[in-house]
Amino acid sequence: MRIGIDAMGGDFAPKPAVLGAIAASIELQNLGTVVLYGDSSKIEPILKEHNCNTANIDVFHTSETIAMGDHPAKAFQHKQDSSITVGFKHLQSRKIDAFCSAGNTGAMMIGSMHTIKAIPGIIRPCLASPIPKISGKTTGTLLDVGLNSDCKPDVLYQYGILGNIYAKTYYDIETPNICLLNIGEEEEKGNLLTKATYELMKDGIHFKFGGNIESNNLFTDKADVVVCDGFTGNIILKQIESFYSIAHELHLSHPYIENLNYENHGGTPVLGVNAPIVVGHGASNEIAIKNMILQAYRITIIKLPEKIKQALQ
Amino acid sequence: MRIGIDAMGGDFAPKPAVLGAIAASIELQNLGTVVLYGDSSKIEPILKEHNCNTANIDVFHTSETIAMGDHPAKAFQHKQDSSITVGFKHLQSRKIDAFCSAGNTGAMMIGSMHTIKAIPGIIRPCLASPIPKISGKTTGTLLDVGLNSDCKPDVLYQYGILGNIYAKTYYDIETPNICLLNIGEEEEKGNLLTKATYELMKDGIHFKFGGNIESNNLFTDKADVVVCDGFTGNIILKQIESFYSIAHELHLSHPYIENLNYENHGGTPVLGVNAPIVVGHGASNEIAIKNMILQAYRITIIKLPEKIKQALQ
Repeated sequence: MRIGIDAMGGDFAPKPAVLGAIAASIELQNLGTVVLYGDSSKIEPILKEHNCNTANIDVFHTSETIAMGDHPAKAFQHKQDSSITVGFKHLQSRKIDAFCSAGNTGAMMIGSMHTIKAIPGIIRPCLASPIPKISGKTTGTLLDVGLNSDCKPDVLYQYGILGNIYAKTYYDIETPNICLLNIGEEEEKGNLLTKATYELMKDGIHFKFGGNIESNNLFTDKADVVVCDGFTGNIILKQIESFYSIAHELHLSHPYIENLNYENHGGTPVLGVNAPIVVGHGASNEIAIKNMILQAYRITIIKLPEKIKQALQ
Repeated sequence: MRIGIDAMGGDFAPKPAVLGAIAASIELQNLGTVVLYGDSSKIEPILKEHNCNTANIDVFHTSETIAMGDHPAKAFQHKQDSSITVGFKHLQSRKIDAFCSAGNTGAMMIGSMHTIKAIPGIIRPCLASPIPKISGKTTGTLLDVGLNSDCKPDVLYQYGILGNIYAKTYYDIETPNICLLNIGEEEEKGNLLTKATYELMKDGIHFKFGGNIESNNLFTDKADVVVCDGFTGNIILKQIESFYSIAHELHLSHPYIENLNYENHGGTPVLGVNAPIVVGHGASNEIAIKNMILQAYRITIIKLPEKIKQALQ
């Protein structure tokens, strides 16, 4: 198996990507090869400096970079030899099995939609973020966290289907409890979107619907998967970031608090596209990149895109 | 000045309300009288038990109670001798100057709209919650936090006006920086609502618009007032609650963390109605009730409803 990683993506590229790739390749051993896409004149010295001689790391030289501020569609179109564009071409032609990047998320989405494309039947792909639970028993999933800021009820219902398959296959939860993020637990609570979505989910047959969940219950064991529109999900995710920063600033330390640190997380998988794609935070450090590559590996192993395809048939 | 408090509101009524009223009356001294509305056979024993002989505390007996689960409009209409209904009648006839409750928020809103009514020109009244800042320099304000879960851009724009007057008069901030909660700082980011609101605020003349703010900046000094729809604001507020609970559970203590404890807060003032109204969390303890009464006192002193009326003329 070959996992591609955009070495030029992220605020401090290429160093965290290269070091993360080394760490992941050591962990993967003969299970898979990590392919770094980017400027080899910048990547090779870092590999040498760290005496990297693992056999399962490859470098594929690309001459261009899509910057964080670049217009996603234009950059993907015009920078034909960028790490992201070449990565997607290789993914499409099966030279690699999965692709991840801490770079321009918009370009990663454009790349997905232009090459591997959305799975037939998917209204909108989405981003699924892990939510660390205080009990530590399982990991929660929140989706969407930023791809679609205006959602219709049928889109949220489909997120329930996607989250259900993800929690089953990625976290081995037999019957995930899928809840709808809302501002009250009672059926009649919420805005127009959540009220209409509740109706769909209540009568749905595709997953176990656990009703509404409020945001003060996000970190408890109430739900395995929490569904919301991308605007609300992004607000929640960034508020988690701020609490980590505050705890850090106040010198409040605890292993759980470290779980809230996005820099140490992997990335967020894109659900609903035809191949394993993981995108990461721009500030990802080498641990985050390593975890992102291992996430992509696991998504490939469990054949997540195929499982989603089957569920939609 | 006479501040009314619903003694029957809240999960543990009437004890926290009575004890909070005692504490507030001691603090207010001859500046104001606290009027407890509720079952005197339950209120008087608590006053006696605590040897309360402050001259500035009154009890007005009411025979009915609007429960937390009651339908707000029906209960307000049918329970004519409930603490909330009588409190609003007294507020309307100027027997009291302000009214607060930790009880049924819906009934408090129905009461406001049926008696003292919205200020002419107000599209929708809203709830303004304090947001403790990590610097401690000032207190931020987030609005709306739950009254209007579906907002139009003109409503959000008017929240900017309300937040501006509130921060100026209540927190003495000369020129409050008003920001729009969004999922990116750039102008073009957001959902349909925030994009359209940005356009209105950018060209607005009623307050200093500081642009978009993301939720990872809520607790910094970037904004004095953060504007959002009531759905998103409520999600944020309850996520703050969850972080307080988590910190508490993990035994992480710090004065700032205590600031996140809604039980110790006052309540949230209703902005845009013709008299000072403050509503509190159902789980309010006596400190929260005391603070809620003192908030209502301050809102009355600074003539907030009149200031809002002037700004809208």
